[in-house]
Amino acid sequence: MIYIKRKEHFCAAHKLWNDKWDAATNKRIFGKCSNENYHGHNFELEVTVCGEIDPDTGFVMNLFDLKQIIRTHIIDVVDHKNLNLDIDFMEGKQPTAENIACEFWKILAPKVADYGALMHKIQLAETNNNIIEYFGE
Amino acid sequence: MIYIKRKEHFCAAHKLWNDKWDAATNKRIFGKCSNENYHGHNFELEVTVCGEIDPDTGFVMNLFDLKQIIRTHIIDVVDHKNLNLDIDFMEGKQPTAENIACEFWKILAPKVADYGALMHKIQLAETNNNIIEYFGE
Amino acid sequence: MIYIKRKEHFCAAHKLWNDKWDAATNKRIFGKCSNENYHGHNFELEVTVCGEIDPDTGFVMNLFDLKQIIRTHIIDVVDHKNLNLDIDFMEGKQPTAENIACEFWKILAPKVADYGALMHKIQLAETNNNIIEYFGE
Amino acid sequence: MIYIKRKEHFCAAHKLWNDKWDAATNKRIFGKCSNENYHGHNFELEVTVCGEIDPDTGFVMNLFDLKQIIRTHIIDVVDHKNLNLDIDFMEGKQPTAENIACEFWKILAPKVADYGALMHKIQLAETNNNIIEYFGE
Amino acid sequence: MIYIKRKEHFCAAHKLWNDKWDAATNKRIFGKCSNENYHGHNFELEVTVCGEIDPDTGFVMNLFDLKQIIRTHIIDVVDHKNLNLDIDFMEGKQPTAENIACEFWKILAPKVADYGALMHKIQLAETNNNIIEYFGE
Amino acid sequence: MIYIKRKEHFCAAHKLWNDKWDAATNKRIFGKCSNENYHGHNFELEVTVCGEIDPDTGFVMNLFDLKQIIRTHIIDVVDHKNLNLDIDFMEGKQPTAENIACEFWKILAPKVADYGALMHKIQLAETNNNIIEYFGE
Repeated sequence: MIYIKRKEHFCAAHKLWNDKWDAATNKRIFGKCSNENYHGHNFELEVTVCGEIDPDTGFVMNLFDLKQIIRTHIIDVVDHKNLNLDIDFMEGKQPTAENIACEFWKILAPKVADYGALMHKIQLAETNNNIIEYFGE
Repeated sequence: MIYIKRKEHFCAAHKLWNDKWDAATNKRIFGKCSNENYHGHNFELEVTVCGEIDPDTGFVMNLFDLKQIIRTHIIDVVDHKNLNLDIDFMEGKQPTAENIACEFWKILAPKVADYGALMHKIQLAETNNNIIEYFGE
Repeated sequence: MIYIKRKEHFCAAHKLWNDKWDAATNKRIFGKCSNENYHGHNFELEVTVCGEIDPDTGFVMNLFDLKQIIRTHIIDVVDHKNLNLDIDFMEGKQPTAENIACEFWKILAPKVADYGALMHKIQLAETNNNIIEYFGE
Repeated sequence: MIYIKRKEHFCAAHKLWNDKWDAATNKRIFGKCSNENYHGHNFELEVTVCGEIDPDTGFVMNLFDLKQIIRTHIIDVVDHKNLNLDIDFMEGKQPTAENIACEFWKILAPKVADYGALMHKIQLAETNNNIIEYFGE
Repeated sequence: MIYIKRKEHFCAAHKLWNDKWDAATNKRIFGKCSNENYHGHNFELEVTVCGEIDPDTGFVMNLFDLKQIIRTHIIDVVDHKNLNLDIDFMEGKQPTAENIACEFWKILAPKVADYGALMHKIQLAETNNNIIEYFGE
Repeated sequence: MIYIKRKEHFCAAHKLWNDKWDAATNKRIFGKCSNENYHGHNFELEVTVCGEIDPDTGFVMNLFDLKQIIRTHIIDVVDHKNLNLDIDFMEGKQPTAENIACEFWKILAPKVADYGALMHKIQLAETNNNIIEYFGE
């Protein structure tokens, strides 16, 4: 068993806001992230999959294929978008890095399985200092 | 003459759009950056000032003071904000990194001069790969 | 279960020296790190906690709270200090990154538990190339 | 139990090519990596070992010793070399990062054991975005 | 006048060898870089151009255009290639980072001029620690 | 004319303190940097030299020689040392990054000249965010 990781990047806007709460509560809970007109980040996404090494290629799966899966199903969908308004799979969900990471897992795990590999981890960094890891359960 | 640089970071949303043009032209000129609902970045700001070394302190100016100037007059104003909608000094200006850098210069140069130092450069990175430098003229 | 990581930094002096040994032995064991007048590092601390996502906030715990816990209980205590002389909780312990990481765990784990999260890992980098990971057991 | 990681770097050439296949198949499977005259990378190797902290030194094992082991047995052998042509332990193996990582494990695990530590992970980054992790089984 | 920088990356093999000299002299002058079967690097290329800000776009030139110019004329030509054997414009030249940077300038300066901008600097990093800057004269 | 840069690193302790002033004034001027028992940093030193490209080697000067000059005359002297107590050339000088950079210039400029190159810049980063540049005048 060996693990391969691919990093990709996207730039998106979001805000954190819960309609159940009034503005003061949202401000208290979400701080600067509740700014009405949004803010944004350069997100760094790291996808780790695992499997056995194929003796002919020396690959678990081709990193070029992993890159294409991530770009087609995630980056092309979320890059230069608003995570509150523009993304179908985030509808009705708070766009925290935690929730985004979980949704990415649901999208990517079956695609990776098509190539005979097993999804291991989604890591999503909102800034260099704030990072989420999700292992699918 | 010696140069000192301080890096600070802020997260903001923006979009590039010119009302003189129709949607198709905006899309052609600004590409993904024209997305109606905004996108965003982790901006890295690097401010360089220069001056003579004070023999008592060994400083051109105290980097703590430079940090405070940048935080008070820039970071606290633009962090977790929308550069099209929330920032007075960007009103009526296209919020490209080029224009933002020039406005930052106008704000910071006189503050730095109050400490006897000379503004040398504003560098603003929108992503790791896209970076603007402005020397004030 | 999801994991969130926060990175913080501090600058400190230390030296490695064991009074049980003579100077030559200390030099042989600890090399340059045994310099009598200390040396120092920019330490990078990465704290990982885990828990369930709260449906109202989309957070395991608020990263702002995690940041404050780390700054109040660690950074404000050790930053710009001497790890051999100035830090109560390091008294009588060799200030290797290994021992520092273990002490940080003891301090932070109960604080994080107060917010309903579980301490998962303390990572402490002394330089870009020398890094310690501790999982609490 | 505590984990210590050391990063080292080497620069090497390689190409991916399987003699069982014709040129078109190699090109389809390995893409740009199949270029006949080789290409190359700055590889970043990260070696993690684990063990108990020695009470006299505060170390699992001396990071200086770990550095020397990696340099003597890996870096001095592969740095500024061609991984297809110059390296005995890669003979007959596809020089993918996956296979290289597995060979490094076989070489380093017994050396680390001589110092009373246990090999935990070999991480090998071919670029900032393409990274392999191997845990020895 | 404002400056914009774009970073791009490529992976290539090379060796340093001068046919005027015997093997011992090449080894003495070029050290490990003279390895007969090549070695390689992840090169980081940073291209800086300058000009006036266009009032309609807020751009000196569109960074998307600058990216495309660099990719079309440089990256697509040199990525995953051997700089001694595969690149027409390096024929008969020692493939040091110095010489590569000068050749890149000759190729890119007229392309950038077509967009009304002025070439300012080519920076080429062979490793994180070894970096070349060329200003065209 | 072409510029070559080499980065090297060292770890050192220091404190900022002026005997002309009482403790309260030192604390007000130098803040946390005045801690009596020192603190420390991982300093990143970047040395830039310039010259013409030698047609036989393709080098301004061999980066291996530049590395050796920096290591012999700077790194071996200051690494894992106390900049207030252990370094002859800092005696009687406030060990700010500004003053350290100027002293490094005086030491390195004649050594580089011996290889036919011209010293251009000393850059010294105390942390990722606090950086000094000195051009020799």
